Amino acid sequence: MVNRKVNFNPGPAAIPLEVLKIAQEELLDFQNSGMSILETSHRAKEFEAVNDAAIALVHELFGLGSDYHVLFVGGGASMQFALVPMNFANDQTVAYIDTGEFANKAMKEAQAVAKVHVAFSSKEEKYRRVPKMNEIKFPQDAAYLHLCTNNTIEGTQFWELPDTGNVPLIADMSSDIASRRIDFKKFSLIYAGAQKNLGPAGVALVIVRDDFLAKAKKTLPVIMNYKTYADNKSLYNTPPVFAVYIMKLVLEWIKGKGGLAGVEKINEAKKNLLYGAIDANADYYKGAADKACRSWMNVTLRLPTEELENKFIADAKSEGLLGIKGHRSVGGIRVSMYNAVSLEAIRVLTDFMKQFHKKN
Amino acid sequence: MVNRKVNFNPGPAAIPLEVLKIAQEELLDFQNSGMSILETSHRAKEFEAVNDAAIALVHELFGLGSDYHVLFVGGGASMQFALVPMNFANDQTVAYIDTGEFANKAMKEAQAVAKVHVAFSSKEEKYRRVPKMNEIKFPQDAAYLHLCTNNTIEGTQFWELPDTGNVPLIADMSSDIASRRIDFKKFSLIYAGAQKNLGPAGVALVIVRDDFLAKAKKTLPVIMNYKTYADNKSLYNTPPVFAVYIMKLVLEWIKGKGGLAGVEKINEAKKNLLYGAIDANADYYKGAADKACRSWMNVTLRLPTEELENKFIADAKSEGLLGIKGHRSVGGIRVSMYNAVSLEAIRVLTDFMKQFHKKN
Repeated sequence: MVNRKVNFNPGPAAIPLEVLKIAQEELLDFQNSGMSILETSHRAKEFEAVNDAAIALVHELFGLGSDYHVLFVGGGASMQFALVPMNFANDQTVAYIDTGEFANKAMKEAQAVAKVHVAFSSKEEKYRRVPKMNEIKFPQDAAYLHLCTNNTIEGTQFWELPDTGNVPLIADMSSDIASRRIDFKKFSLIYAGAQKNLGPAGVALVIVRDDFLAKAKKTLPVIMNYKTYADNKSLYNTPPVFAVYIMKLVLEWIKGKGGLAGVEKINEAKKNLLYGAIDANADYYKGAADKACRSWMNVTLRLPTEELENKFIADAKSEGLLGIKGHRSVGGIRVSMYNAVSLEAIRVLTDFMKQFHKKN
Repeated sequence: MVNRKVNFNPGPAAIPLEVLKIAQEELLDFQNSGMSILETSHRAKEFEAVNDAAIALVHELFGLGSDYHVLFVGGGASMQFALVPMNFANDQTVAYIDTGEFANKAMKEAQAVAKVHVAFSSKEEKYRRVPKMNEIKFPQDAAYLHLCTNNTIEGTQFWELPDTGNVPLIADMSSDIASRRIDFKKFSLIYAGAQKNLGPAGVALVIVRDDFLAKAKKTLPVIMNYKTYADNKSLYNTPPVFAVYIMKLVLEWIKGKGGLAGVEKINEAKKNLLYGAIDANADYYKGAADKACRSWMNVTLRLPTEELENKFIADAKSEGLLGIKGHRSVGGIRVSMYNAVSLEAIRVLTDFMKQFHKKN
């Protein structure tokens, strides 16, 4: 009997059980090839088919035109924090919107290699919100404007996107990629670590438009140049084979849920349920983020005291509800509910919240 | 009934069946935590224990002093090709020994960011050999000397190591790491992609000595600075959790075989058997590498004609012997026999070779 608990981890995070079961079933023998996917050459036709399918699924699910390249880069989003300015600053100023700890880290990495303009910062407001569109200011000759669409630690999300004119827009979508419909055409480049909505840690998805990619610096080490990945279907060097394989299974699972529109609908029901439970007892459960920019993926809240928060986390754990401790930098409670977290899991949690409030 | 074939892949490559079975067994529920290791936070005590154990096993198996840091870096060895000179060139000349396609790639990446001195090259000899020690020439003020201990594509291996005096020695050991005893104290830095002797693709092992690490450039992006990994037990950002987990299982498996001395003994028996079969029919099976520097890991050979080579590969495949096609850049046959390839597998192969020679 397999013991499965409810996993609200912020990342690495829940993966659909259906996906895990497929991976388990074929772990010793991938598609009758006589070997595990872990042992399969990245040059083998079996893996090339996985890689091609994963690329095609991203195109299909996200509705991307043929002018967008889909890349899989080994490592995580943190590596992209550095690679993006190395590829695209080109001695111009780069502009960053500073809305959370990871957005800030991306900006700091850019500062190591480029001249950075801060287009907006809510740091002084403890990152409780993202900007209104008219608060974002950046030079019209910036190489790009960078933002983080969902702030995992703080629990905020962009529900409107700036119109940047001729300035290319770049987004770190690590924690809300593939969770909702979005106008991908607005972006010149998108990247996301896989370990929240797309699969296991160890690979970053990068989506980049042709015209922007053409501007990438030519003198970088080959492995740091996005063009290397685009020109070789991400097979220039050995890719993280297993991570790409799981991502492909997760993308198929998303497709089975009705694509981005399908998961968005479920995610909307989840956030209505959880924020509803918070707001119904707003003196006890205090949402940490500004209401206008609440995240559907990471719900941050505080209880009246730290003692109660600790008891809440401990009691939840004994009910099989795991991973809800707030990030060490901010404290409190954080419930991460990526695609693989079901509406039923949120029902269990909100029932627990009602009981906990009654008793404590 | 699981169908398992004999896997001579050059990388990603065979993984011990015992390791795969453990991974399969606990894929839905890691150590009764209620979630998969794929879903486990890198900050969870369950993963920290895996990470700590993997670091300790590298120290123990390789006999490293406490002055060596063991790092796990997401991505592969190709990323280290760039990170090594970025961290350690420091405006000095860097010296490279050019003994194969990957050694050459490492050198080219260094050329993008530093002034490179070629300490030796066998490129004109089609990389059939590595240098004699007295052929290696480099400036005494070089920031480091870089070599690749085993040349996967060409099938050569260093059986002697240069005495570099005050010049730090750096090695790419991707394809022979953990396959034999070696004097690790000679090296200031070692790196290896995991997907040959250590586990799945997606993580690179880096071992770096304290005094050398102190020389690393301070102004790099944080994620590209080896010090970041050393200071945070490779947990500064989300590591490739699953790859580290499998690596830990593989290291335990190596320990069970008697450590590096144990696997070296088996690897020696394997190479004696296979090179013996080649040399017993030296007019038919022609070893591609110079005898003095034959690799124990990757055995390269030619048959009298390309047609025979193609038939050899096809017939072997129908006998369940996979992955022996030579690299596209050199052709011929290549048998990769990393730690997870058993002596019995080499017996099956050499029996096949005798039969094939008789019939063809």
